[in-house]
Amino acid sequence: MKDTKGITVKKEEDMPEWYGQVVLKSELADYAPLRGFMVIRPRGYALWESIRDFFDKLIKSNGVKNAYFPLLIPKSFFDKEAEHAEGFEPEVAWIEQEADSEERYAIRPTSETIMYDSYSRWIRSWRDLPLKINQWCNIVRWEVKDTKIFLRTREFLWQEGHCVYATEKECDQDARVILEYYRKVAEELLAVPVLTGKKTKAETFAGAVRSYAIEGFMPDGKALQMGTSHMLGQNFAKAFDINFLDENEKVSTPWQNSWGISTRLLGALVLTHGDDKGMVIPPSMAEEKVAIVPIFVKDDSVNEKTIAKAKEIASELKKYNPILDDRTEYSMGWKYNQYELLGVPLRMEIGPRDIENENVVLVRRDTGEKIVVKWLDLQDEVRRLLDVIQTNLFAKAKQVMESKKTYVSTWEDFLVADKEKKLILTPHCGIEECELSIKDETQGVTSRCIPFSDSKVTDEVCVKCGKKAAYKAYFSRQY
Amino acid sequence: MKDTKGITVKKEEDMPEWYGQVVLKSELADYAPLRGFMVIRPRGYALWESIRDFFDKLIKSNGVKNAYFPLLIPKSFFDKEAEHAEGFEPEVAWIEQEADSEERYAIRPTSETIMYDSYSRWIRSWRDLPLKINQWCNIVRWEVKDTKIFLRTREFLWQEGHCVYATEKECDQDARVILEYYRKVAEELLAVPVLTGKKTKAETFAGAVRSYAIEGFMPDGKALQMGTSHMLGQNFAKAFDINFLDENEKVSTPWQNSWGISTRLLGALVLTHGDDKGMVIPPSMAEEKVAIVPIFVKDDSVNEKTIAKAKEIASELKKYNPILDDRTEYSMGWKYNQYELLGVPLRMEIGPRDIENENVVLVRRDTGEKIVVKWLDLQDEVRRLLDVIQTNLFAKAKQVMESKKTYVSTWEDFLVADKEKKLILTPHCGIEECELSIKDETQGVTSRCIPFSDSKVTDEVCVKCGKKAAYKAYFSRQY
Repeated sequence: MKDTKGITVKKEEDMPEWYGQVVLKSELADYAPLRGFMVIRPRGYALWESIRDFFDKLIKSNGVKNAYFPLLIPKSFFDKEAEHAEGFEPEVAWIEQEADSEERYAIRPTSETIMYDSYSRWIRSWRDLPLKINQWCNIVRWEVKDTKIFLRTREFLWQEGHCVYATEKECDQDARVILEYYRKVAEELLAVPVLTGKKTKAETFAGAVRSYAIEGFMPDGKALQMGTSHMLGQNFAKAFDINFLDENEKVSTPWQNSWGISTRLLGALVLTHGDDKGMVIPPSMAEEKVAIVPIFVKDDSVNEKTIAKAKEIASELKKYNPILDDRTEYSMGWKYNQYELLGVPLRMEIGPRDIENENVVLVRRDTGEKIVVKWLDLQDEVRRLLDVIQTNLFAKAKQVMESKKTYVSTWEDFLVADKEKKLILTPHCGIEECELSIKDETQGVTSRCIPFSDSKVTDEVCVKCGKKAAYKAYFSRQY
Repeated sequence: MKDTKGITVKKEEDMPEWYGQVVLKSELADYAPLRGFMVIRPRGYALWESIRDFFDKLIKSNGVKNAYFPLLIPKSFFDKEAEHAEGFEPEVAWIEQEADSEERYAIRPTSETIMYDSYSRWIRSWRDLPLKINQWCNIVRWEVKDTKIFLRTREFLWQEGHCVYATEKECDQDARVILEYYRKVAEELLAVPVLTGKKTKAETFAGAVRSYAIEGFMPDGKALQMGTSHMLGQNFAKAFDINFLDENEKVSTPWQNSWGISTRLLGALVLTHGDDKGMVIPPSMAEEKVAIVPIFVKDDSVNEKTIAKAKEIASELKKYNPILDDRTEYSMGWKYNQYELLGVPLRMEIGPRDIENENVVLVRRDTGEKIVVKWLDLQDEVRRLLDVIQTNLFAKAKQVMESKKTYVSTWEDFLVADKEKKLILTPHCGIEECELSIKDETQGVTSRCIPFSDSKVTDEVCVKCGKKAAYKAYFSRQY
C-alpha cells in the first residue's frame, strides 16, 4: 500500500481521468497486459463477492439453482436463432482448435444457445417445469470500442439466469421478479438509484420479445445499464426444439427468460460514490467497515497503552472486520489519506487524550464529519453511523439523479436538454426507425427505458416525428 | 426427475460404465455438445459450491484474498519460464483474435505467468509481502487422451492460489499449510481419505522446485491426484522480474508457491462413495440432507393428516434443508429409488401407523439401515445419524485404501502387486530416469508421492535398479 499517491484530478473537472485514477489507486483493478482486459484486484473482487452473495441468496429463495455450462460454444448453435447470431457475431472471439468436424468454437459472449441445447434434452414433461438455472462465469466480447475498466472490457464476470416455464404469465412475472432483485442489488446494496422499466424495441436484446432493465444515471450525465431481464418468449424454445408434455399429454412449447448483471456494476459504484479523495464503499458492501488508527506520541509506554486499547476495541468490533493499523513506519496523515483513498466507511482515531476521556473519534468517509463517541456507546454508535452512511449515500445519489431528470415535448427542447446532459423523459411514437434517427442526429442519444411509472400518454405526440406518441420514455447518452 | 432409470451395472463389475451412469443419472453432470467438455448440473454444482465455501473460509483465515485475472494469456508470457512453457504448450487452446502485434493468446491452462506479470508491478518492498492471492476460475487444457466427466475434461473449474514471500521458510511452510487444508477438504468434507506427501522429481510441477500433493486411491485400484501445492522457489520471480526492497533497502528476490484443487474432486467423491444404487453424498456436503416421503393410503383424509405432520417435521428440520416429496403422481417405491439414486443421506418415511405411534422411520443411505425414531427424539437423532454417516463413509473408504496398501522390496513383487492393483510402497533411488523406466516397463505405473510418514530408508536398495534407496514412495496406476 505504500507509494500510493492520492487522486490528482477533481471528479467534476475530468471524470474519465478521475475514474481511471480511482480504479487503479484504490486498488480495485489494474490494467492487464492484453488490450481491453482487466485484472480485478482483491479490493475490487471483494465487492463483486458481496454482490454475488447478496443476489445469490435472493435467487436461491426463488428456487433458482446454480450450474456451469461450457466456455466454448459451437458456431452452429449461434446460427440457430438468427437475430441472436446477428447480434453477437461481430464481437465473438473464436478459437483455433477444431473438433473432428467443420465446426468452429467461440468463447461464450452469452450462453443462451449452449444452455438451451441441454434444456432440450432435460425437459420432457410439465413436471420438469419451471426449470430455473443460473451460472456465475466469465464472458468474452471482443469490443472494438474503447474499453474502460469495469464499464466496457473484453472480458467480464457476470451471472446469467436462464429459466423455462409452462406459461407465458409465469415467465413474464418471474422476469419482473428478477428485475426487482436487481433493483435491490443496486439500491439497497450498492446504494445506486436506478430507473426500472421496459426497453424500447430498438434496444431490446437480440432474440428477445421484451427486455426489462435497471438503468443508473451517472454524475457525468451518462446513463449506465446495470442489469437486464429478458422475456424471450418462445423464440429460443422453437429454435432449440424445447418441448414438454403438458398435463393433458399434449406437446407444448415452453416460455423462457434470461437475465444478467456483471462486474459493470462496480463501475457504477465508483462513478456514483467516489469523490476527490478516492473510493467510497457503501457500508453494506465494505469488507472492512472501520479503519482504526492509533495516534502515537513520543513516549513508547503511552503508545503501548493506546495500542492495547485499540486492540481491545478492534476485537469488540470484530463483526465489522476492522483494520487496526498500528504500523509505525507510516504517519497518521498518510494513514488517513490511505483509508480515505480505499473508501473504508468509518475511520476511528484513538490517542492518549481519548483514552483519558474514555472516548474515540469517528470520522465518516462520506461527509468527513467527526464524531466523538464514548467507549460505552461504541457498538451502538458504529452500527448507527454505518446505517446513516448507507442511507446518505443513496439519498445523495438519488438527489443527483432526480435533479438531472427533465421532461421535454419538443425536439428543440430535447436538443437543449441533451446539451445540458439531462435524463430526458419524452413522448415517443415507438417506431424503431424514428428512434434510430434520434441516435443518428444526436450522435449517440438512445432510449434508456419506458419506465414502469410515468410512461402513460394521452394526446401527446412524438418528440421527433410528431406522430401520435405510444409512450413516454427516458433518453440520454450512455456508457 | 421423471424417466430416471436406476443404475444398470454393478460398481464392482464395470466401474467405468458404472461411473458414467452415476454421474449422468444422479444428475451431477451431463455431456456437452463439444467433445471433452461437461455441463455441471445443479446437483453437481452444489457440491462444488460446498467445496468452495469450505476451502474459501480456510484460506481467508490464513490471509489469502480472492482476485480475478484474465482468461487469456499472451504466448510471450509462457515462454518466460522455459520448463513451464514446455509443460503446458501441447495442451493449450489458442484464439484467433490477435492484438496489434505478433502476439498469440492462449486460454489459460493455469495462471502463473499472467499473475506474476502483475505481481512484478505490485511488489516493491518488504511491506508488500507476503502477497497471498487466490482465484476461482475456469481452465482449459486441450487434452488428447480420453476425457471423462470431472476426472479429465478439457475445461474444468478450480481455484489457484499464488503467494509471494520474503523468505524461503515462510513460503515452504505456507505451501504445507495449504496442503493440510486440502487434506481437510478431502477427509473432513468429502470423507475421502488421502495420502499426503511430496512428489518425486519426475512428477514435480513444470517450473516448481518441489510439489506436495494429496492423493486419493479409488476402489478400482487407481490413484487420483486430488490437490497439489507447489513450492516454486525463485524460478518464476526471476523469470518475471519480481523484486522487493528488504528491510535493509537491499533488492531481493522473493519466494513463491502456487496450489490448486479442481472439480476433479467430484470424480473422487463419486468413485469413493457411490454404490450400485447410485450416488452417496456425505452429509456435510449434501445441500438437502433428508428426503421426507409420506406414505399414502386410499383414504385422502388420512393422507391429509400425514402430509400435515410431514410438513411440520420438515419445518422443524429446516436447517437440514429437507425435501418433502408429497407428489401423488409418483409411487413410494419410485421415490425411494430416486432419493437413493441422488444420494440424499437420510430418507424419512412417515405413514398413518407412524402417526399413531408418534414416530417416523429413518433410512440411512450409506447402509440401508432402518431406524424407528420417536418424534420427540427427532432433532437429536437426525443430527446424530448425519454425523454417523459422515464418519462411516470416511471409515469405510479408509479401510478400503488401507487394505490396498502393500510394501514390496523386489521388482518381482512390485509387478505382482501392480497386477493386484495395489497401492505400492517401495524403496526407490530417486533418480528420474529410473522412475521413468518403471513407467515404461509397466506401461503406466508412476509414483504418487513420498509420504510425509513412512518414507525414511536406512539400508534399503531401489526396487528397480538396485542402487541405494533415497526414500520410500508410493507407486500405482492413476487417473
